Amino acid sequence: MIDVRNPQDGFAALRARISALGDPVGDDRGADGEPLTVGEWALLIDDIVEHPDQNTEALWNVASPEEDDREYDAIFIGGGAAGRFGSAFLKARGGRQLTIDAWPFLGGSCPHQACVPHHLFSECARELDLAKHMQGKLWYPEFDASKASILEIVKLFRAGRGMPHAIMNWQSKEQLGMEYILNAAATVIDEHTVEVDGRRFQAKNLVLCTGARTDFPAEISGLDRKGVYDFASLIEELDEEPTRCVIIGGSKVALEYGSFFQATGCQTTILTRSPLLRTASLHHVDEGLRDYVIDMMVDRGIEIVEGAQTLDVLGDDRVTGVRYRDANGEIVEVETDFVFVGTGERPDLRMYEPLGLKIDDRGFVVADATMRTSVPNVYAVGDLLGPPMEMFKARKCGVTAARNIMGEHHEFDFSEYPDFFHTTYEVTWCGLSEAEARTEYPNVIKIQMPPDDADPESFALPAAEGSMLYAFTRPILSGWLKLLVDADSRKIVGAHHVGYGAKDAFQYIDYLIRRPEGFTIDQMADLNELFLNPEHFIQLSRLRAGQMSLVSL
Amino acid sequence: MIDVRNPQDGFAALRARISALGDPVGDDRGADGEPLTVGEWALLIDDIVEHPDQNTEALWNVASPEEDDREYDAIFIGGGAAGRFGSAFLKARGGRQLTIDAWPFLGGSCPHQACVPHHLFSECARELDLAKHMQGKLWYPEFDASKASILEIVKLFRAGRGMPHAIMNWQSKEQLGMEYILNAAATVIDEHTVEVDGRRFQAKNLVLCTGARTDFPAEISGLDRKGVYDFASLIEELDEEPTRCVIIGGSKVALEYGSFFQATGCQTTILTRSPLLRTASLHHVDEGLRDYVIDMMVDRGIEIVEGAQTLDVLGDDRVTGVRYRDANGEIVEVETDFVFVGTGERPDLRMYEPLGLKIDDRGFVVADATMRTSVPNVYAVGDLLGPPMEMFKARKCGVTAARNIMGEHHEFDFSEYPDFFHTTYEVTWCGLSEAEARTEYPNVIKIQMPPDDADPESFALPAAEGSMLYAFTRPILSGWLKLLVDADSRKIVGAHHVGYGAKDAFQYIDYLIRRPEGFTIDQMADLNELFLNPEHFIQLSRLRAGQMSLVSL
Repeated sequence: MIDVRNPQDGFAALRARISALGDPVGDDRGADGEPLTVGEWALLIDDIVEHPDQNTEALWNVASPEEDDREYDAIFIGGGAAGRFGSAFLKARGGRQLTIDAWPFLGGSCPHQACVPHHLFSECARELDLAKHMQGKLWYPEFDASKASILEIVKLFRAGRGMPHAIMNWQSKEQLGMEYILNAAATVIDEHTVEVDGRRFQAKNLVLCTGARTDFPAEISGLDRKGVYDFASLIEELDEEPTRCVIIGGSKVALEYGSFFQATGCQTTILTRSPLLRTASLHHVDEGLRDYVIDMMVDRGIEIVEGAQTLDVLGDDRVTGVRYRDANGEIVEVETDFVFVGTGERPDLRMYEPLGLKIDDRGFVVADATMRTSVPNVYAVGDLLGPPMEMFKARKCGVTAARNIMGEHHEFDFSEYPDFFHTTYEVTWCGLSEAEARTEYPNVIKIQMPPDDADPESFALPAAEGSMLYAFTRPILSGWLKLLVDADSRKIVGAHHVGYGAKDAFQYIDYLIRRPEGFTIDQMADLNELFLNPEHFIQLSRLRAGQMSLVSL
Repeated sequence: MIDVRNPQDGFAALRARISALGDPVGDDRGADGEPLTVGEWALLIDDIVEHPDQNTEALWNVASPEEDDREYDAIFIGGGAAGRFGSAFLKARGGRQLTIDAWPFLGGSCPHQACVPHHLFSECARELDLAKHMQGKLWYPEFDASKASILEIVKLFRAGRGMPHAIMNWQSKEQLGMEYILNAAATVIDEHTVEVDGRRFQAKNLVLCTGARTDFPAEISGLDRKGVYDFASLIEELDEEPTRCVIIGGSKVALEYGSFFQATGCQTTILTRSPLLRTASLHHVDEGLRDYVIDMMVDRGIEIVEGAQTLDVLGDDRVTGVRYRDANGEIVEVETDFVFVGTGERPDLRMYEPLGLKIDDRGFVVADATMRTSVPNVYAVGDLLGPPMEMFKARKCGVTAARNIMGEHHEFDFSEYPDFFHTTYEVTWCGLSEAEARTEYPNVIKIQMPPDDADPESFALPAAEGSMLYAFTRPILSGWLKLLVDADSRKIVGAHHVGYGAKDAFQYIDYLIRRPEGFTIDQMADLNELFLNPEHFIQLSRLRAGQMSLVSL
């Protein structure tokens, strides 16, 4: 074991070892006897991730009996979003926790393989899209697709991911006071006992937080060929620049990574059974939003095949093509050297077999709104419970488990939430779609840009933070928005946006419109806008709010 | 006059004339007898703006007595932000208004010379900054500063500004039902009478909405030389590519345009008397935010001279340099071919002399919280009233005047509001600065990224929408944030952000924290974040909200 807690014993040796790895970025080097800095953590984590065979020792940050001799209130198995936030909350409430992760860092798949690279890739997609669109105009040179390398961007992420990892380890230890053991597999013995790094730990409760991973469809043959990736193996294993991409599945991940691959100049085909953005896991998707998003993906050259049943991934050692049955029942082959699977995720529950948990028919753990499973003192959180597999849910599940363990009855209902994904745009929504709103309320008005009767190629709105160059060169590319209002109560019932810079606001708009008292068009109109605000809802509401009897805009 | 209202009389001729100007973008051409489309409006407006001497006829959109024979409730002089929103609200409330503007479009200086070009320029600054920083990495070629032309970007704006103008005219007529006369100067006769295009109009009230313009300091000689610009003349008159820039003044406009000029490769010096971001017109500027913003401007190579008293702009016909007295009393000369004046704005009130309005000692119109001036039935709104010269204030002043004119007593207090400006970053804040919070509350905690004790060169947060490429190449460039909480009440009292994508959210955060009941760290922690959310406030609050006794993060 490597004890990262005790500066007296072995700490100097650890620091000497870190020092030998190189210079921390920004020369963020700690003083003798002081805890590891973020820069030092980054070097250590990178070394372990790069050379796992030579780094089998666990990282121990566990209080000695002199520091704390209390029984653990909970052991969190998995230190990702759910486990880390749950642990931090339990600790903040005065409890004692131990968090165990197989990786040498806290934060889980998000900063290692999932949301963080996704955001880097989506930012690259946006910038590449702009560079391609603007080529030959202003300072933009001719776009050289041969320079836009998926592999290079993946390498940039791989080289830099140690830094966010380091912050998680540093913050969890120095700011949050958490105890953890990393780079070590946990073995569940029973509902109070976990073995890790050769030692058994007892706790009043267990919180299971090990997440989910891509569910490779068993009915498709050839998914084990080289050149077939999911979001995780793309990061770990990509070794050649793809020249042509086929995506199997129509999930958010498929849309996001497909848009990224296409933006780099890698011609991308999406094979999806269900129509895009009409799957059960994405609720409240407005039809107008869907149309704009798909039109703009097609405008960028992505080929979308709906109603496609993928049959085989072809090739020998490496993939050479994909065979599918199209909506008419015809068998079609596409040549490709790169297949990306985005068919959704499932948890791996084998390690929990000793507990005898109740599992639902989709393979997710059954838990109530307090995160209690069918086994007393065992809680399950995050992606283990099924969709939505979103960060807010994972973290708040962890916190909910912590609150209940610490004696506060607390329920978390994640059936309603704001939602988003990326194409080359940021797509965000909350509340009801227009069709849903019209079903629920007899008198719905909408505020929409561009309006239905406008020619979107000449209607230079929305123009805002991040869409100005599009607005001034080809307005249709600058985005789309809609606000839905129940004209009788004047309450806002849905908000939808495609563009840039509105995602952060939707967190608050969702809160406001879902308060019991709601949020009216008059309240929206009375806010102080920061013009040119990305979603324009405030001022557009103000243009209508004068009306006693509301009319669409 | 050109009657844009009556499709029967002369409308076909107008359309033939528009047709002769070219093809509307997106071929947005109206049918015979139908109102002008956005595309047609754009062609017409562009022609008038480009050739004012050949386009002296006013554009009339005034109801005939058969359509509406009521007296006007108000004439709005000026159809900019304040006048257009006030007019729309008064009309929506069932009143009758007439809006008059000297330009051939509604919307005022914002889409013509001010906020819209500022946002286009700030977006270019951001993209140029990224292109320069990333040069030689990934797909980014070596940065060629000779291609980054201020003049070309100004020309792009000039060529495209007709489109937003067109939307204002189209929307105001077709969607909002406003009456207006454009491309015609108004002459105020008395508090009920305005003459325009050779005809006198009577109204129960006047609303003065003519805005402000740059206040060129009288004590600086040579400001009339070629090569000296303000935000308005930059758009209308720039004819040569600047090679070196000196900015006189330290206003928001100075920071924004200075950052843009520097980003294009034009070496920029800012001469300011007061320390940057410590002027009375910008309140609640946090010291940490100020430091980060200025450090990052200096990092980009901008030269900032505080305590500078500009004396003369040197040159013959064209500017060749600027002479100033520095903080030590030394006289310094800087060579430059381009001077930009950002010393703040004042209204031109000469046209209102017949009214005998009360004016304050800074030259602004005196009005109460209902926008009533010292003259009965005369309202003044927007920039005429002084700072803050912001869009939300202009529009809501107009609406406030409209409400009071329509018989509803309504007061508008614009002393508190969220605020923002651009450098190559988006800088946003609301509530109190840390120093203010510590004066007001005995027990303030803060949540800050990077924390004070971190090395910002290696602390890869904030990383979010729009700052991922920075976070993965040089973390210090990726932004800065701070949330201030009164630990006793647990209420959030201030929020501050430098980065990208948070501006829209600050509109709602400001509302939430300024509600009478406030918004606590616990309520913030309970929101559903859309991760990676630009300001990270929700999840960072959640990491602390478990504590009964709050501690800084």
